[in-house]
Amino acid sequence: MKFKVFSELTYVATTPATFIFNIHAAKTANQQILEESFSVSPDIYYEIFSLGNNGIRFVKLELYVPLTFTITYQAQVEVSHEVINESTLSTPTSIMQLDPGVIPFLYPSRHCQSDKIYKLAQSEFGNAGTIFQQVNAINEWIYQHIEYLGGSTNSGTSAYDTLTQREGVCKDFAHLGIALCRALDIPARYFTGYAYDLNPPDFHACYEAYIGGRWIFFDATKLVPINGLVKIANSKDAAEAAVASFFGSAMCTFMNIQCEVMDENFEPYLLTPDATEGIAYT
Amino acid sequence: MKFKVFSELTYVATTPATFIFNIHAAKTANQQILEESFSVSPDIYYEIFSLGNNGIRFVKLELYVPLTFTITYQAQVEVSHEVINESTLSTPTSIMQLDPGVIPFLYPSRHCQSDKIYKLAQSEFGNAGTIFQQVNAINEWIYQHIEYLGGSTNSGTSAYDTLTQREGVCKDFAHLGIALCRALDIPARYFTGYAYDLNPPDFHACYEAYIGGRWIFFDATKLVPINGLVKIANSKDAAEAAVASFFGSAMCTFMNIQCEVMDENFEPYLLTPDATEGIAYT
Amino acid sequence: MKFKVFSELTYVATTPATFIFNIHAAKTANQQILEESFSVSPDIYYEIFSLGNNGIRFVKLELYVPLTFTITYQAQVEVSHEVINESTLSTPTSIMQLDPGVIPFLYPSRHCQSDKIYKLAQSEFGNAGTIFQQVNAINEWIYQHIEYLGGSTNSGTSAYDTLTQREGVCKDFAHLGIALCRALDIPARYFTGYAYDLNPPDFHACYEAYIGGRWIFFDATKLVPINGLVKIANSKDAAEAAVASFFGSAMCTFMNIQCEVMDENFEPYLLTPDATEGIAYT
Amino acid sequence: MKFKVFSELTYVATTPATFIFNIHAAKTANQQILEESFSVSPDIYYEIFSLGNNGIRFVKLELYVPLTFTITYQAQVEVSHEVINESTLSTPTSIMQLDPGVIPFLYPSRHCQSDKIYKLAQSEFGNAGTIFQQVNAINEWIYQHIEYLGGSTNSGTSAYDTLTQREGVCKDFAHLGIALCRALDIPARYFTGYAYDLNPPDFHACYEAYIGGRWIFFDATKLVPINGLVKIANSKDAAEAAVASFFGSAMCTFMNIQCEVMDENFEPYLLTPDATEGIAYT
Repeated sequence: MKFKVFSELTYVATTPATFIFNIHAAKTANQQILEESFSVSPDIYYEIFSLGNNGIRFVKLELYVPLTFTITYQAQVEVSHEVINESTLSTPTSIMQLDPGVIPFLYPSRHCQSDKIYKLAQSEFGNAGTIFQQVNAINEWIYQHIEYLGGSTNSGTSAYDTLTQREGVCKDFAHLGIALCRALDIPARYFTGYAYDLNPPDFHACYEAYIGGRWIFFDATKLVPINGLVKIANSKDAAEAAVASFFGSAMCTFMNIQCEVMDENFEPYLLTPDATEGIAYT
Repeated sequence: MKFKVFSELTYVATTPATFIFNIHAAKTANQQILEESFSVSPDIYYEIFSLGNNGIRFVKLELYVPLTFTITYQAQVEVSHEVINESTLSTPTSIMQLDPGVIPFLYPSRHCQSDKIYKLAQSEFGNAGTIFQQVNAINEWIYQHIEYLGGSTNSGTSAYDTLTQREGVCKDFAHLGIALCRALDIPARYFTGYAYDLNPPDFHACYEAYIGGRWIFFDATKLVPINGLVKIANSKDAAEAAVASFFGSAMCTFMNIQCEVMDENFEPYLLTPDATEGIAYT
Repeated sequence: MKFKVFSELTYVATTPATFIFNIHAAKTANQQILEESFSVSPDIYYEIFSLGNNGIRFVKLELYVPLTFTITYQAQVEVSHEVINESTLSTPTSIMQLDPGVIPFLYPSRHCQSDKIYKLAQSEFGNAGTIFQQVNAINEWIYQHIEYLGGSTNSGTSAYDTLTQREGVCKDFAHLGIALCRALDIPARYFTGYAYDLNPPDFHACYEAYIGGRWIFFDATKLVPINGLVKIANSKDAAEAAVASFFGSAMCTFMNIQCEVMDENFEPYLLTPDATEGIAYT
Repeated sequence: MKFKVFSELTYVATTPATFIFNIHAAKTANQQILEESFSVSPDIYYEIFSLGNNGIRFVKLELYVPLTFTITYQAQVEVSHEVINESTLSTPTSIMQLDPGVIPFLYPSRHCQSDKIYKLAQSEFGNAGTIFQQVNAINEWIYQHIEYLGGSTNSGTSAYDTLTQREGVCKDFAHLGIALCRALDIPARYFTGYAYDLNPPDFHACYEAYIGGRWIFFDATKLVPINGLVKIANSKDAAEAAVASFFGSAMCTFMNIQCEVMDENFEPYLLTPDATEGIAYT
């Protein structure tokens, strides 16, 4: 599936400041960048870097004086989603056999305090069937019980709060999904990306659970088709994959995000409560 | 400096369970394992693995039935501490020039909510001089203001609580140090190890701050000489470097930890409030 | 119904200290003290006082030197429980017509942060029928979802935590019941007392909700018959009705609590999920 | 001192709703209402009531249909402030001799978790001299360390957060002052009122500490002269003395608050770090 993504962000820095942006589409086995461009206006020196060999890319730039600047990214991306069948999804996860790279996603993180909700997760979802059925039950529960309400939370909000306060935005839905999975000893990670048909347009945050040896994609907001994403990054949670981190005083004053599907035969896929197949990005 | 370390841990698992231990001395440029042995009794299959190429080693093992077992580790380790001089410690940290591997240690984590204590950190320590002087001021403040009190906290306690409740054990002192550093945009990471002269004997938790391109070692408990450690692991915080993580029901029923210096000319070094030199483990 | 209650508490004060105890059976319209005695050993001056004209009694005493002392209280108490019928319980509560003395029990308190769980309470219990049915649904939910586990919480634990962590002791069950009621705009208050057949013997904490103009009694632990209590106090939560508050350093080293029913025809009454009648203490 | 106070509030209720307002100047020994009027437009039935015999007045009214309405209150009030001298302020507080009505103000409340900050309070302020000097040191510390920043907190914010996050508005400053006092076993209560010269005009929140048998007034914001207040209410914290509590869906859309001094010889009094005299409202 071919996507065209675009983002334009303006920041006003009122002090010298360093920025780290995370808006490039990831380069992975299943996601190829056909064409892309990135620019900063005015023309400031920047560097693109990765934290590992996972294809996730960051941009850093430094302002020596207060400045207003705009970054623009656009790309055409070919994304292959794999449909993962019931037999794979039914395979129990053996922690003993987990790849070492997956193990960190078992542990609690800044916004996903899985260690504090162990009993809740076990009693609510521990008996929901296969691992996939358990995660899908979590996803459905979040969708049913948490109100999507713009502006109801802030960057300090975490899964522990959302579970009780019952409101949030996409990052909060994702953090709660991740925390509940990890509390069931299921590795789970944060997923940010461009999302087709998201209204109002914005970056989107979802999550993936490690089931049957694959990272299966979930979106508890159900705001977009789950095959309509272009991945930017995976991480333990939003603390590690912010669209923009800055060191100094700054604020975002303009944001324009777009994501279009370029194929005519795109069939939106939504996960249902009784789904037997999942979708994997790689 | 040559150290002899030893640990013996007994766990009672009341269900089938998987364990991940992190008790091996790390293999690093400055820390060489002269001799070591690890065993499990009864004889259970285990695997040693690393999460990266950083020399930090984990052991995993799986119990298919409830079982009581004991793991034993002993090693002789040659550790070189580097004394880092004032000129290096006075070099400002440029976020722009940070190695990508250091960047994750700028962000908040499960037990180190640096994002929530930004103002406090800036106003209390932001004007304390060079980066090293700022961190040393943080370290001294923790030592002066937090009461070391065994049993006063639990595994869910975090820096945000410790800052207010003013009591804790070594992990809490380390988490607070890390959180305050990160709130000042100074990368900081958790350090676990065997510690010479720790009383009562136990594993020890400290932290390192990234100053002048080096990871400088700090211990806000001041319980042991800062050149008396054998590193086990670095991580974002205790959530990622527990001595023992288990999946299933289990409990530790016995623990015997030892750490001896084998050189006669060991000169204990303690960081003072007006120190101008620091120490780095690698 | 006639009860015989007894409590004996030993405290070791390691500094001069002032104590406020709240262990006397309350004197109310429906609870008459037939006979009672209170003593302190050694013989320390004390005063009995009330905070209002509600029959709740406190004892205060002051130690000018460190001391170990024991207080002993015993009483025979006649308690009349009123059975409140369905028609009263079905009467909607009009906030406009609440007695001023009831209004404070609508607001959040130290351990009952009803303001933070409004959405959860509304969506889970807001449509459960009459006010009585709503509170009974809350009570049943707590009983089903929270594990009674001695030692799992401490004096700082509050309803906000219990809702997520899913474990606690009687005070935590009561705080959660109160918080959920208040989040539904139903006045609710804390109730401490001596409880018949409580195992192990201890003081007990329950709660009351204001329904149809009466304070209806609930106990989410279901550890004792709801007609087996002798009231000590009502309050907003445990912060205002501790068995013992002390100012100075002290610790309780011995506790012996007893509560016997003296009538042969006592018929234990337990609230069922489909109960149509409630019980009121006054 | 004669004051003229005025408040006009418009609320839009989108459902049937009950409101409880607390905007009337209190009637106390030292505060006499020379003239006042209260009205609701449109003309809705309301009742004025008190929770005790303390002269604090509330208005309740009920809307049977969604409605937009405005309440208006104006009064001329004669307020006598008593200057409390050093000898009274130096008298140690004996908990044993506290009036029963004062005791509840020793305990933690919703927004003032004094139980969790005991060590911090003791170590920071416990040795600051007389009780008055201790509270004045608390007041000064808050003024120096907490940034007054409109919109930085919300109604769920409490002293525990403010202590760490270091920002807030007048209620947060008051809650922190109260929590720190109670953690030192000094009774403290919340104080709301009309404040002369407050900019921008609004209701104001301060606090009182019980010293030498009197409630001494403190304002950690230092935004107004401490003899420039007209008391509306005292309470344990904001949870019990909100300007407006409502049950149903509503929002405030307009607010106009005024407070003028009518005497020409008004001499603004500000508490200094080395003050030896305090001021009491009654």
